[in-house]
Amino acid sequence: MEIMKAAVLAIGTEICIGQINNTNGTWLASELTELGYKVIANSSISDDEEHIISEIQRLTNIADVIITTGGLGPTQDDITKGALCKFFDCELEFNRSVLDNIIEMFALRGREVTDRNRQQALIPAKSKPLRNAVGTAPGLLFDSDRFTLAALPGVPYEMKWIFENSFKPLLKNIIKHSGDDIEIHRTIRTHGIFESHLADLIGDTNKIPGISNLAFLPSFSGVRIRLTATAKDVNDAHNKLRTAIEYLQIKIGQFIVALDDTPVSLLTNQYLRQSGKTISVAESCTAGMLGAELTKYAGSSTYFAGGIIAYSNSVKTNILNVVQKIIDEFGAVSKETALEMAKNVRIQFNSDIGLSITGIAGPEGGTPSKPVDGMFRFINH
Amino acid sequence: MEIMKAAVLAIGTEICIGQINNTNGTWLASELTELGYKVIANSSISDDEEHIISEIQRLTNIADVIITTGGLGPTQDDITKGALCKFFDCELEFNRSVLDNIIEMFALRGREVTDRNRQQALIPAKSKPLRNAVGTAPGLLFDSDRFTLAALPGVPYEMKWIFENSFKPLLKNIIKHSGDDIEIHRTIRTHGIFESHLADLIGDTNKIPGISNLAFLPSFSGVRIRLTATAKDVNDAHNKLRTAIEYLQIKIGQFIVALDDTPVSLLTNQYLRQSGKTISVAESCTAGMLGAELTKYAGSSTYFAGGIIAYSNSVKTNILNVVQKIIDEFGAVSKETALEMAKNVRIQFNSDIGLSITGIAGPEGGTPSKPVDGMFRFINH
Repeated sequence: MEIMKAAVLAIGTEICIGQINNTNGTWLASELTELGYKVIANSSISDDEEHIISEIQRLTNIADVIITTGGLGPTQDDITKGALCKFFDCELEFNRSVLDNIIEMFALRGREVTDRNRQQALIPAKSKPLRNAVGTAPGLLFDSDRFTLAALPGVPYEMKWIFENSFKPLLKNIIKHSGDDIEIHRTIRTHGIFESHLADLIGDTNKIPGISNLAFLPSFSGVRIRLTATAKDVNDAHNKLRTAIEYLQIKIGQFIVALDDTPVSLLTNQYLRQSGKTISVAESCTAGMLGAELTKYAGSSTYFAGGIIAYSNSVKTNILNVVQKIIDEFGAVSKETALEMAKNVRIQFNSDIGLSITGIAGPEGGTPSKPVDGMFRFINH
Repeated sequence: MEIMKAAVLAIGTEICIGQINNTNGTWLASELTELGYKVIANSSISDDEEHIISEIQRLTNIADVIITTGGLGPTQDDITKGALCKFFDCELEFNRSVLDNIIEMFALRGREVTDRNRQQALIPAKSKPLRNAVGTAPGLLFDSDRFTLAALPGVPYEMKWIFENSFKPLLKNIIKHSGDDIEIHRTIRTHGIFESHLADLIGDTNKIPGISNLAFLPSFSGVRIRLTATAKDVNDAHNKLRTAIEYLQIKIGQFIVALDDTPVSLLTNQYLRQSGKTISVAESCTAGMLGAELTKYAGSSTYFAGGIIAYSNSVKTNILNVVQKIIDEFGAVSKETALEMAKNVRIQFNSDIGLSITGIAGPEGGTPSKPVDGMFRFINH
């Protein structure tokens, strides 16, 4: 059975040469994956008409849905529209609804519409505009018997707005009426075991029921395992994934710490919101990163009181009230100092939990007994 | 004149479907760019032998140097070696030096070498190993008349070690003896002006002396302008870029804030180190992000004392000593409260500068007069 295939292409030298991360490509690929599409290519290309055309040629040959981002702006280095005209063999054509949108946007901001802005209402004759309510460049939709291609702007919030509001409903429709299979993924987390040892315990992955693929994703925080199921609809796929997880729980259950891919900072957020406990932090080498992690998700003001960034030793003693004798005897990077920091911040901030980190972040300042990256963490509650 | 072209390919479904950012691709592309290579493709592909082979085919047709990452691990979903054998039409062959390296690494860690580990000493017969001193998977080097291809592991620190130590010297040699031109980029920063207005002021970019290309890179922190020069060597290219910048300073000088792409946090680090001034922070909604930014680069312990994360109002009054009356009268999100926070943290931490932020980070908690993302910042010194 066929599976619906998708490809993402970021157009822009900035991305291609590594000046910025291709976060647009990552975001679009994960959105397409969640809808059940199998993303088979996620690439970037420089602002060069010939390269753009040949890459679009390749992707339209292998995917059912193609999304490009970038190169739709008003300046000379924005050449996506010209490349699309050549690829689809058509001219630029003036589009009234796009111009109305541009005029409306500029009126709201109290700005004049320049000739350069007006040019953005020219779109390839074989495309339909995809409404953009947060910027002047519309998305462009091309439909053929073999594929659907959408060209979106590169500015992330404009790209996301058009995708969510103007293109996603269409993507759902395409997959629903294709008759093709869909692919759904689920990622579980393990801890305390190497990839090769996990693979030995699991054995032949072809014997795992329900799934079409298993992948090991090693990282510093443990090996994650991504399972893939293929089915007619989302419910079927999730039932298959459940069967696979039951099988894996027998083989490697003791190493599984979570049955999904929730980030640790979100798990912490959920735990603290549910428990009703409050927390404060005393950070040394991390200089605020811990506080930032604890407040990454909505609702953190219900549990996070705040903290003290005790970067210098004098702040540890003067503000955080760590006894000078403890620092003299055990050093600022020690379990004893970490304990004092956690206890004192909890008391000062009147929270249920105090969390501390002290260490040497590097690159300088390390010694053989206190190496860079070595650190002590303490929870007091 | 020909320019040396390079392409980067990340192999791995995880990247292709958007489960993680392709940071390996970004890093490698920026390294290649700095060496003078023109990176013309930076793509990712799923763990599928057929797709990998066809993508390597495409890239070897258009680039002089190709680097792949990923898929060299010891498990079933690591299929890069097999794909390379098919593409180069050769078998896997046992390599003694690779096995010696594996045995040495495991001995250092006091672990047994398993059969699965031993298999990593099998490499394609037409490749040479690129030494990996920090992991078991060697890089693989393929040389042909038309191109050079290196396959590196996907684990970032292994990939970087092999690139820096085993492959970069070779890349320098290739470009030096090619006789081809190189491309060098320089990015300047503007502030307080829209992309379209900048483009109007600059006029025809073909008239700018010295450069082969100009690109506008808009973002929330201002529009950056990337200039590209093509030359025989790095010095020539930099001289050309200087000519272009002199020309641009006449056209848009009043909007240029920096003649390079140094991040704001590094500029701050440099300023504080040079001035000998110390700084402390009082953060509300940012919850530590400001402290983390200030300590991102080496040497921050010479100027950063620390700070108080005053996330809840009670911390603002109890720990940071903001007078309750000020919060009652003007609100926690007000210029008056921000000023008090900056002043008080400077005094408490005995630093030259106090820096504060108060605001509503969202998604909840905003009101029409105090919207989400609206914030007040204050410097006291």
